Amino acid sequence: LPSEPLEAAATPLDHGLLSPATVGHDDAVTDAAVLAALVDAEVALVEAYGDLGAVPRGVVDELATALRSAEIDVADLAAASVSGGNPVIPLVGALREGVSEDSRAWVHRGATSQDILDTALMLVARRAAIDVHASLRRTALALTAFAAEHRDVVAAGRTLTQHAVPTTIGLRASNWLRGVERAAARLDAAASVLPAQLGGAAGTLAAFGEVVGADAARLPAAFAARLSLVAPDAPWHTTRWPLTEFGDALVQVLDALGVIAADVATASRTEIGELAEGSGGSSSAMPQKQNPAAAVLIRSAALRAPMLGATLHTAAALAVDERPDGAWHAEWPTLRELLRLALGASAHAASLVEGLRVDTDAVARNLAATRGLIVAERLSLVLGPVIGRDAVAALVADVQAGGDLRALVRAAVPASAGIDIENLIDPAQYTGRARALVDDVTGEESR
Amino acid sequence: LPSEPLEAAATPLDHGLLSPATVGHDDAVTDAAVLAALVDAEVALVEAYGDLGAVPRGVVDELATALRSAEIDVADLAAASVSGGNPVIPLVGALREGVSEDSRAWVHRGATSQDILDTALMLVARRAAIDVHASLRRTALALTAFAAEHRDVVAAGRTLTQHAVPTTIGLRASNWLRGVERAAARLDAAASVLPAQLGGAAGTLAAFGEVVGADAARLPAAFAARLSLVAPDAPWHTTRWPLTEFGDALVQVLDALGVIAADVATASRTEIGELAEGSGGSSSAMPQKQNPAAAVLIRSAALRAPMLGATLHTAAALAVDERPDGAWHAEWPTLRELLRLALGASAHAASLVEGLRVDTDAVARNLAATRGLIVAERLSLVLGPVIGRDAVAALVADVQAGGDLRALVRAAVPASAGIDIENLIDPAQYTGRARALVDDVTGEESR
Amino acid sequence: LPSEPLEAAATPLDHGLLSPATVGHDDAVTDAAVLAALVDAEVALVEAYGDLGAVPRGVVDELATALRSAEIDVADLAAASVSGGNPVIPLVGALREGVSEDSRAWVHRGATSQDILDTALMLVARRAAIDVHASLRRTALALTAFAAEHRDVVAAGRTLTQHAVPTTIGLRASNWLRGVERAAARLDAAASVLPAQLGGAAGTLAAFGEVVGADAARLPAAFAARLSLVAPDAPWHTTRWPLTEFGDALVQVLDALGVIAADVATASRTEIGELAEGSGGSSSAMPQKQNPAAAVLIRSAALRAPMLGATLHTAAALAVDERPDGAWHAEWPTLRELLRLALGASAHAASLVEGLRVDTDAVARNLAATRGLIVAERLSLVLGPVIGRDAVAALVADVQAGGDLRALVRAAVPASAGIDIENLIDPAQYTGRARALVDDVTGEESR
Amino acid sequence: LPSEPLEAAATPLDHGLLSPATVGHDDAVTDAAVLAALVDAEVALVEAYGDLGAVPRGVVDELATALRSAEIDVADLAAASVSGGNPVIPLVGALREGVSEDSRAWVHRGATSQDILDTALMLVARRAAIDVHASLRRTALALTAFAAEHRDVVAAGRTLTQHAVPTTIGLRASNWLRGVERAAARLDAAASVLPAQLGGAAGTLAAFGEVVGADAARLPAAFAARLSLVAPDAPWHTTRWPLTEFGDALVQVLDALGVIAADVATASRTEIGELAEGSGGSSSAMPQKQNPAAAVLIRSAALRAPMLGATLHTAAALAVDERPDGAWHAEWPTLRELLRLALGASAHAASLVEGLRVDTDAVARNLAATRGLIVAERLSLVLGPVIGRDAVAALVADVQAGGDLRALVRAAVPASAGIDIENLIDPAQYTGRARALVDDVTGEESR
Repeated sequence: LPSEPLEAAATPLDHGLLSPATVGHDDAVTDAAVLAALVDAEVALVEAYGDLGAVPRGVVDELATALRSAEIDVADLAAASVSGGNPVIPLVGALREGVSEDSRAWVHRGATSQDILDTALMLVARRAAIDVHASLRRTALALTAFAAEHRDVVAAGRTLTQHAVPTTIGLRASNWLRGVERAAARLDAAASVLPAQLGGAAGTLAAFGEVVGADAARLPAAFAARLSLVAPDAPWHTTRWPLTEFGDALVQVLDALGVIAADVATASRTEIGELAEGSGGSSSAMPQKQNPAAAVLIRSAALRAPMLGATLHTAAALAVDERPDGAWHAEWPTLRELLRLALGASAHAASLVEGLRVDTDAVARNLAATRGLIVAERLSLVLGPVIGRDAVAALVADVQAGGDLRALVRAAVPASAGIDIENLIDPAQYTGRARALVDDVTGEESR
Repeated sequence: LPSEPLEAAATPLDHGLLSPATVGHDDAVTDAAVLAALVDAEVALVEAYGDLGAVPRGVVDELATALRSAEIDVADLAAASVSGGNPVIPLVGALREGVSEDSRAWVHRGATSQDILDTALMLVARRAAIDVHASLRRTALALTAFAAEHRDVVAAGRTLTQHAVPTTIGLRASNWLRGVERAAARLDAAASVLPAQLGGAAGTLAAFGEVVGADAARLPAAFAARLSLVAPDAPWHTTRWPLTEFGDALVQVLDALGVIAADVATASRTEIGELAEGSGGSSSAMPQKQNPAAAVLIRSAALRAPMLGATLHTAAALAVDERPDGAWHAEWPTLRELLRLALGASAHAASLVEGLRVDTDAVARNLAATRGLIVAERLSLVLGPVIGRDAVAALVADVQAGGDLRALVRAAVPASAGIDIENLIDPAQYTGRARALVDDVTGEESR
Repeated sequence: LPSEPLEAAATPLDHGLLSPATVGHDDAVTDAAVLAALVDAEVALVEAYGDLGAVPRGVVDELATALRSAEIDVADLAAASVSGGNPVIPLVGALREGVSEDSRAWVHRGATSQDILDTALMLVARRAAIDVHASLRRTALALTAFAAEHRDVVAAGRTLTQHAVPTTIGLRASNWLRGVERAAARLDAAASVLPAQLGGAAGTLAAFGEVVGADAARLPAAFAARLSLVAPDAPWHTTRWPLTEFGDALVQVLDALGVIAADVATASRTEIGELAEGSGGSSSAMPQKQNPAAAVLIRSAALRAPMLGATLHTAAALAVDERPDGAWHAEWPTLRELLRLALGASAHAASLVEGLRVDTDAVARNLAATRGLIVAERLSLVLGPVIGRDAVAALVADVQAGGDLRALVRAAVPASAGIDIENLIDPAQYTGRARALVDDVTGEESR
Repeated sequence: LPSEPLEAAATPLDHGLLSPATVGHDDAVTDAAVLAALVDAEVALVEAYGDLGAVPRGVVDELATALRSAEIDVADLAAASVSGGNPVIPLVGALREGVSEDSRAWVHRGATSQDILDTALMLVARRAAIDVHASLRRTALALTAFAAEHRDVVAAGRTLTQHAVPTTIGLRASNWLRGVERAAARLDAAASVLPAQLGGAAGTLAAFGEVVGADAARLPAAFAARLSLVAPDAPWHTTRWPLTEFGDALVQVLDALGVIAADVATASRTEIGELAEGSGGSSSAMPQKQNPAAAVLIRSAALRAPMLGATLHTAAALAVDERPDGAWHAEWPTLRELLRLALGASAHAASLVEGLRVDTDAVARNLAATRGLIVAERLSLVLGPVIGRDAVAALVADVQAGGDLRALVRAAVPASAGIDIENLIDPAQYTGRARALVDDVTGEESR
């Protein structure tokens, strides 16, 4: 590497010590992975020249081998990146040193740093997206089974923290599933349009034209093909939707997982106890505790993601000239951190849902906590026209004061009304389309 | 309206006095527009019941007329919204007062406040999106013409604030256009999937089942059809992608417009002077000033949008139970403000681009500001192999020290090299694929 | 007002229909209040000239009266603000029209729009801060009484949603109080340094020097004194800490209130039921519900505030030149909305705490929910050294399996150990310094 | 370390490859630094027990030595942190393994993970703040010298990107200085109140009471004293102002540096060229370029900081129960990243300002760019009363059309008016209090 005023850091900044939500799941986005993607981009450029016939195949192969085998210390490279403001400048220097003088000119030829760095970010994004997708698929499969299994477990539906009307554990899980599947689809769509970047210093491809003439028009597609990225319509140095659309999709993934985590954390509360993680975190000091550890970590990620997305958008909106003066640089660590959160949270979500347990006793106990009034809305609807709204209100008040719902309803409703009172006060008979809504999404038959 | 502890505010909060970026463009999102959408949703529910045959057509018509003609003061309604936490509760009370006792039960029947409010937000979003789309269309048309007209105006390309290599005014504008078209397409896609909301208290549709039995399954689609919204797969009370996907698209719109504004503001600088708004803001005290007023207002909107998008995502990630305890409420004013910014910024962008003027003298003067070195990259590429990298560097240094580029190149390059020096040092001959990239997007032929 | 292409909006944007968290509490920050502050700033400038002896007192009085009595329609003014990008330009035009030709020159003399608008924002901020402070004071007083009253109500302490060790209702409330008092102190500190703005077009005060010569040095202080704002060290057109420090304090207020709301919402859950708002929101359809309505609204505000604070900081960081090209404009509606949230949330918090009720039966029932294991940590600490860690773990497991804690402890602990088992297993004996921590902040004596 | 399902990552996530803004400046906040602070906190707890006389001094010394010399691999520790959700749990296990069985019980005795982790974050914050402060001090000293040196360099003042009235390079720099000094003072104030955390599982200090009885009241202060942190009034497990106030101060630091960077980047533009960094980044492909590299990196940091601050606030507002279920965990990496940005940006700012060069020729050339009309405001003020506003406007228009300002003024102003025209049209005579405003802050005498 070129001599630089800075030495490499004595120690890496981040091994994940402050990020238990992601440790063990972020291999796809480490600095080493980014470096590999940068090298991949440089190799692909040489290969693309080869594909256009501009470079003999032998030289391409020699260069590809040499570039991939260059021994580059990530920390040294990071230190060398400061003066030029990005790691591509010293990387190119280092890569060129390792190749023969004859071939050297083909390394990074005609490209600008942004071409390589943006392309590498797209590669990292796509590779990480595959991992996120796999975790979301596991999560969705587990949710499908979970929703189907607990389709008919009637539970208290809660709005604004209060028991409202009955729902089912299955319906709640199927809503989680709908959120996850929507987010996964959006992520896949965004990942499938990630473009390579190739434009040269100001996005005109002029330098490439000097090298290969009119073939410069075909170079970006050849470059993209070598990386399995999408061929760009045009250089997008200051048109940053590839980052923001993908970033938005990542945030949406974290939103969807955050909802699961919020519901699991709530239902895991000691007083509620309807759900428990298969392997909750324990506490040595308080052996009775069984923390919803995965839900907690997922929530921590979901709370951070929106602001990372906002940073990508702010940078996008401030793109100026042919390369922005700071907005571009703000994107790199932000996108990486967002990927990291999605990787970690989706992996935890898959495990969480796979191990999620329902305490049906607790569900039933909670459902009865309002002493039958979980069906109060139904009483209003059905009995209101028969005995009047005031009588229904009085009845509800009597139950709240300690009265027995069944007895009070029997006393209030004339037999002549022909109302099936047992059915009326049975929460299981007031779950509406819950079963069908589960079946729709789990693919099972509702009857 | 039901009696409430609060009186209506003596004066509205916001006429736009602090929001010149949006004044005059936000009719689609005023409180009055929201109220109209809330009433539309209540009417559509009655109509949907009618469409299922549950209510006689005459009653439907009577109710539709009565609801739409109810005189409701927005400020009073807002004041009455506080105790219940949302405006639907007092609205339903007010609407019911205005209809016959026989029909009264059909108003809001089986619905929950969230059904009506979410649906109304979707209506407001769709209506505002139409206006935003129209402004983006105007902007895109004007950009197409502008890019085509200035396709061959060679200008200094700038990276990290410094002159880099030549580009064209047309290419820069075509990049703006690509950003706008991408954002418009995304907005259209998001607007086209905005779903109605109908689920009842806990999203089971149970109350609707009490009213219309198995037909409850068909009610959401009938409801959505009456509003020209998409029929929901399922109630989405806590699955908030309809807001976040639409919100993300709005932020993307503002990003794309922000880039135009950033470039126009920069190019309007007194020292640069390449671009001028048709009707810039003037200053009475400083009559020589011609401010890029529209660009400034667009930028102010683009800087605010990302955080509004982040708020929507945070709320989405915190959706819990069957209706969240605060996250839902945080969405309403946030989505409205984001719509407002998109309405204002897109309208200003259309006017800005339609009136945008190029000072070609300034463009040419700036292009020459580095005394020919705007083609330094080309000199390196072409002359490096001929005279050596060190000689090129020396040549560049000589020009920077005051030397004449043409003379120095002539002196340095042997005639035997067969290089067309006039072509080599002509910035217009080093714009690469700029012309084709413009033509691709403007639909013109490049040769 | 000067003729403008835009007409005033037919209807105001915002009466609070989508903002139940703030309706009824935002008088201090309406557009009308902003307009009044703008006029106050213009009047103060004339008065400051008078105080320096530059304008006869009679003229000052005439102008002050005329400016204050000018009839200006806020909506018209907003519409007229667009072309110049801020409301001061048309305001000055309108104000000048209403005064005698002789005096006219003294209106806005030497000032720039930013002087008046920034100063008006500071006035609005200070006025609103007084209201917020009053609500925080009410909240703190109510919390003090509440904490003192429930100082010894032993309750389950919860970490990561699970019962951990005992705490008290009073200690939890005293923590809320500490947060509120810290935030109130910070808000007061920030409000007490809000400076007037007076610098002229580029912050040099040159135009004022033309008018009053060397006295220009004293003009800002005279101006500030008339408004009871702090005299600025220097014009702060691009040094935006007055907005961000105040904005940070507002966000901190909302954080502190958000914590109360989060705890109240949680403790109000049907299954927990330890706390209830005095006048919770009810539901006509579900008469059994008693929603924590104020907590929900406060949470909705607390979730929005951080991103508004971030917008102020982003704008501050992008201040450039002598007046920024959009960043400045982004601040106005953002600061106003943040003030509005603080006004609404603090008013709701005061009412909430004043009416907050404790269900001590529920508290006790919950405390016992782990069948005595709320003191498991104490068992480990005390019994571990006596009977060994494994024996304690076995004991805990036996209780979890249904065993009786008292009996199991009695069986496990030899009498010779001299341990007071009743004390050991009594949660009330394991609240540590809870009582003292309450007394410290409520000012009561703990013994 | 306890056996864990996860292996340590094969490679660290972050060496700074994507963060050139901070590489080389973030030693104080690496994972290794955090680990050291965690150990410091555990040692301090033992020492505090010793200071209260609960542990013999010999045992304290033995433990302190043993804990500090424990060989703990950061990556292993991070991997072991996942199941419990924080690194303290496995850290305590590892530390206990290395001490004698007799002393083992004193490690982490009575503490909860949050006590140690929060305290360690405060330590890291304070240590990093010292570095940030030193860089801000360097920046302020350099700015003081720079402002004094260029106090009288008259330059075009710009508002909304356009030349407005004259200012001076010194005044602009003194405004930067005011922002930096304000931010530094706020950071110092925030750093000086960083409290230790010590409360035990639910913040009651009950476990400490089991160990040392009434002395538990004195333990937090003893603990804090050992770490030179502030003794907390009370445990602040869910009262998060220590993080948010410090975080706000860091964001304010980045705002102040961002303004410098924005102005330097703007003034470095090829067409403006008034300022240049001493060692700007160069480009091998475009040897004529001299990028404002430090300004670009500082801007990239300043654009990211506000959203990190917002994340801290969101987490603070969601603190619930006695330890929150995710909000707490979201704070750790966020605070660290914010510290990192402040470290990097402040170091770059110091270097930038120390090396900042002024091209006075460019300044003068730009000042003249409007052909004298930089004093148009003054012409209005002075000549308006003499020759009428319309005549002034005509004069300005004539200059804009190519006329000579001096000649036109001479022609328009009657000699009888007694106006010193040379003075009138000299920009240097229209800088108002610029000189005094510089002297105020640089401490020099203005006359």
